[in-house]
Amino acid sequence: MALLSTAPMRSSALRKIEINCDMGEGFGRWKMAPDDELMALVDVANIACGFHAGDPSLMRKTVSLAKLKKVRVGAHPGLQDLVGFGRRRMEIDPEDLYSMVLYQIGALKAFLDAEGMPMNHVKPHGELYFYMQRDPAIMEAVIRATAVYGVPMYGAKSEVQKSMCAKYGLSFIEEAYVDLQYSKEAKLLSVAQSNVATPQDIYTRAFSIATNDNIIDNEGNLVTIGFKGQPFSFCIHSDMPTAFENTKACRKAVDEVNSKLGWS
Amino acid sequence: MALLSTAPMRSSALRKIEINCDMGEGFGRWKMAPDDELMALVDVANIACGFHAGDPSLMRKTVSLAKLKKVRVGAHPGLQDLVGFGRRRMEIDPEDLYSMVLYQIGALKAFLDAEGMPMNHVKPHGELYFYMQRDPAIMEAVIRATAVYGVPMYGAKSEVQKSMCAKYGLSFIEEAYVDLQYSKEAKLLSVAQSNVATPQDIYTRAFSIATNDNIIDNEGNLVTIGFKGQPFSFCIHSDMPTAFENTKACRKAVDEVNSKLGWS
Amino acid sequence: MALLSTAPMRSSALRKIEINCDMGEGFGRWKMAPDDELMALVDVANIACGFHAGDPSLMRKTVSLAKLKKVRVGAHPGLQDLVGFGRRRMEIDPEDLYSMVLYQIGALKAFLDAEGMPMNHVKPHGELYFYMQRDPAIMEAVIRATAVYGVPMYGAKSEVQKSMCAKYGLSFIEEAYVDLQYSKEAKLLSVAQSNVATPQDIYTRAFSIATNDNIIDNEGNLVTIGFKGQPFSFCIHSDMPTAFENTKACRKAVDEVNSKLGWS
Amino acid sequence: MALLSTAPMRSSALRKIEINCDMGEGFGRWKMAPDDELMALVDVANIACGFHAGDPSLMRKTVSLAKLKKVRVGAHPGLQDLVGFGRRRMEIDPEDLYSMVLYQIGALKAFLDAEGMPMNHVKPHGELYFYMQRDPAIMEAVIRATAVYGVPMYGAKSEVQKSMCAKYGLSFIEEAYVDLQYSKEAKLLSVAQSNVATPQDIYTRAFSIATNDNIIDNEGNLVTIGFKGQPFSFCIHSDMPTAFENTKACRKAVDEVNSKLGWS
Repeated sequence: MALLSTAPMRSSALRKIEINCDMGEGFGRWKMAPDDELMALVDVANIACGFHAGDPSLMRKTVSLAKLKKVRVGAHPGLQDLVGFGRRRMEIDPEDLYSMVLYQIGALKAFLDAEGMPMNHVKPHGELYFYMQRDPAIMEAVIRATAVYGVPMYGAKSEVQKSMCAKYGLSFIEEAYVDLQYSKEAKLLSVAQSNVATPQDIYTRAFSIATNDNIIDNEGNLVTIGFKGQPFSFCIHSDMPTAFENTKACRKAVDEVNSKLGWS
Repeated sequence: MALLSTAPMRSSALRKIEINCDMGEGFGRWKMAPDDELMALVDVANIACGFHAGDPSLMRKTVSLAKLKKVRVGAHPGLQDLVGFGRRRMEIDPEDLYSMVLYQIGALKAFLDAEGMPMNHVKPHGELYFYMQRDPAIMEAVIRATAVYGVPMYGAKSEVQKSMCAKYGLSFIEEAYVDLQYSKEAKLLSVAQSNVATPQDIYTRAFSIATNDNIIDNEGNLVTIGFKGQPFSFCIHSDMPTAFENTKACRKAVDEVNSKLGWS
Repeated sequence: MALLSTAPMRSSALRKIEINCDMGEGFGRWKMAPDDELMALVDVANIACGFHAGDPSLMRKTVSLAKLKKVRVGAHPGLQDLVGFGRRRMEIDPEDLYSMVLYQIGALKAFLDAEGMPMNHVKPHGELYFYMQRDPAIMEAVIRATAVYGVPMYGAKSEVQKSMCAKYGLSFIEEAYVDLQYSKEAKLLSVAQSNVATPQDIYTRAFSIATNDNIIDNEGNLVTIGFKGQPFSFCIHSDMPTAFENTKACRKAVDEVNSKLGWS
Repeated sequence: MALLSTAPMRSSALRKIEINCDMGEGFGRWKMAPDDELMALVDVANIACGFHAGDPSLMRKTVSLAKLKKVRVGAHPGLQDLVGFGRRRMEIDPEDLYSMVLYQIGALKAFLDAEGMPMNHVKPHGELYFYMQRDPAIMEAVIRATAVYGVPMYGAKSEVQKSMCAKYGLSFIEEAYVDLQYSKEAKLLSVAQSNVATPQDIYTRAFSIATNDNIIDNEGNLVTIGFKGQPFSFCIHSDMPTAFENTKACRKAVDEVNSKLGWS
């Protein structure tokens, strides 16, 4: 591949392909994912802020762990719904939502400030993410709250979100997923709609997206994702039973491709 | 009074006598105090951060109101106990408590950042305040959380707190109360132990403390408070039925004394 | 009016016209309505169960107060949304909602059991009420939870709710409102859409509905409500500033009409 | 052993030795123990009521599962402390505590009523249990709440609790533990103080207590428990990693001894 001999110009806010992962999504005595193991494998952690999951002590520990493993940290705000894990629809006034998101970003920022770490980005969780995509006033509320700190937002490809971020001076980092499947329209399928991926599937998909900007969809077609040779972020779901193996497989592909591209 | 003819040297972090008041202590549809009216009368607002009272929307509104009225804003963190209004004893690991306080300070700071306002101070609420006085590890946890932002702490006179603040490089602003009574040991009495104060009582007490550093205690003795001619902060309880009249009376005394002392 | 000389047959589950009112809608230190005063004026209290408002101690006190004043008590379950006072839309799985409502009814029943009082009825609060009207699966979930105890439901006139209640063997007690206005289609208007009612308005409306089954709507038309000479329940909003005066005016009209009809 | 040839008179409220276990201690998406597997092995489930763990949907599912497996169900109320799993000390007014416990018992009872199952007992959780042992007013508050339904209480041997239960007409069912160790004073040791038990240890301890009323303590001494030949309840901790194997081992011993004693 000629592409591999010289690195393309990087117009993205990223300098290489990376992996991000949701972390700190337990609550009190309850655990969600093997954060300790995953933190050693990812570049970026999205840390829950106490509304859909997470509590102050867990936030502190997860931020410290990220620092130890040299992982960048972003806020992972959600709807105020512990019992529903931030996955239930709620109708919220955009001004109230702005306040809820800002509250959570600020709370996480305090733990970063205590460790002398910068806030890397904001990535909305679960239903808050879908609510943004459905409702422009909600999207603007989340982006306004993020704009208080001027950090990038993370999310699946969305021209609407990208351009509204730009309006507020924010970068938008686009994500690819390899533990779920895509439809032929390059739309991400849900857990229920996707076949379970083996670590080998994860590696193959990650390598294919990273080098060729495409993937085999759930019907066997070759589908273009659309990163156009720019660095992007893989998102691994930390709450799948095979999260650790999935992340290792993705890590291997990412490291190989970054190395070939001379991205570091 | 010779004292009034020339202003003393001010070694305090304050430049004049001021009034602080707890604000934003409602929750959702529930109100606590007449914040709108009180904000016009005070110098400093201690804003609840969502653990004992307050919610993100109320925090945003209260910070905006403070900005409009040129009132300085501090964080008013409490124990995580909405139903008990942060007034019940709970046994908390100091490291967990550090995280809870830091979380709340960060959450409030986000609303200040959004308005371009500095964080003025931190003042612990209710049982968190008493817990600090009883338990040095808890006091240190609260002070460490405050030290992340290097702002002063507010509280009743306490040499222990003052010196532990100093250890972490923080100023300690001492308070006087005029809507409750003092014992002859210059200890503040509770609501139940104090006679109800009229606005005239408030004015008299405030004027006496501000000019003479003393007050008539609950048994009729003259008691020295110990501010030694330095500026300090009056704290008015916003949840008393007569909070508005009390604050007006205190304001009048404070303005008169600051004016006489040439403090501005 | 010939109607007044002989009492009609009463096919309703009620034996006379009555007044019901939401009670116990504070939380911890926060108050909502003057329950102490209102309890002396009403026949039936709908007591909040801790999800949108209310806490165990307040439930106990409110049930005791009702017993003292010989007021019948029903459960007033709501969505799990303290900060939104149960007035925000949430999308909830009907089976989960069944469990939430049953939980709340059971919790209130315990306080009634402790006092040896029967559960009078169930009346859903705020958005839970509207959700039922929009979504048949939600309506059925609420009715199934109520059917565990076989008590009547209260609500605004609704043929759908009445017939689904009947399917589960439950009575449906229909309500009239006099502190808000009706449209010409006999639909209740919101607080924002209604003119503020004076106590005299309340009395006039209550008397008109109770004796003539009609009311003057917001445009000045005479509108029939549809109780057809059967006993029904007036609902007074306890959180209006004039709730006490409103209830007194309604009480006067109800007592007069019950007396004239020989209903007791 | 002569004891085995003829069954002793059973003065206990139990008719044979049994196993009880805490269940339903997840919250929303978070799991705590393998309830599905454990329910097939125990006689009695203590189901969390939403204050320290548990939510309405989980309570409904756990009650249904218990019904399916013919397991008797009791309420497992705790302090209102999700993030601390009901294990942190809190100072609560006894009258408030009475209301909190009654609320939880009533909530659980509703799910039992829906299934036509009786409430078997009440067993306080974690710190609520210890609080009762420390503070007679708290113990009486919990017992008064239980007495509303007249069901037995479960707990470790305690003459104080037994006699206060008796005062309120309640049986007190005494428990033995086999997954933790006892001191030579027959006091239960904490997880940190106990060696990890193998399933063989569990079996040996259970068999020894059930047949001989004694156990080897943490220093190797033979210690009498004090059941005096009466049926009692083994409590297995569902949140230990080996909970399933532990319960199987205990089940085997219990079945063998009940069979030998002719208890059924």
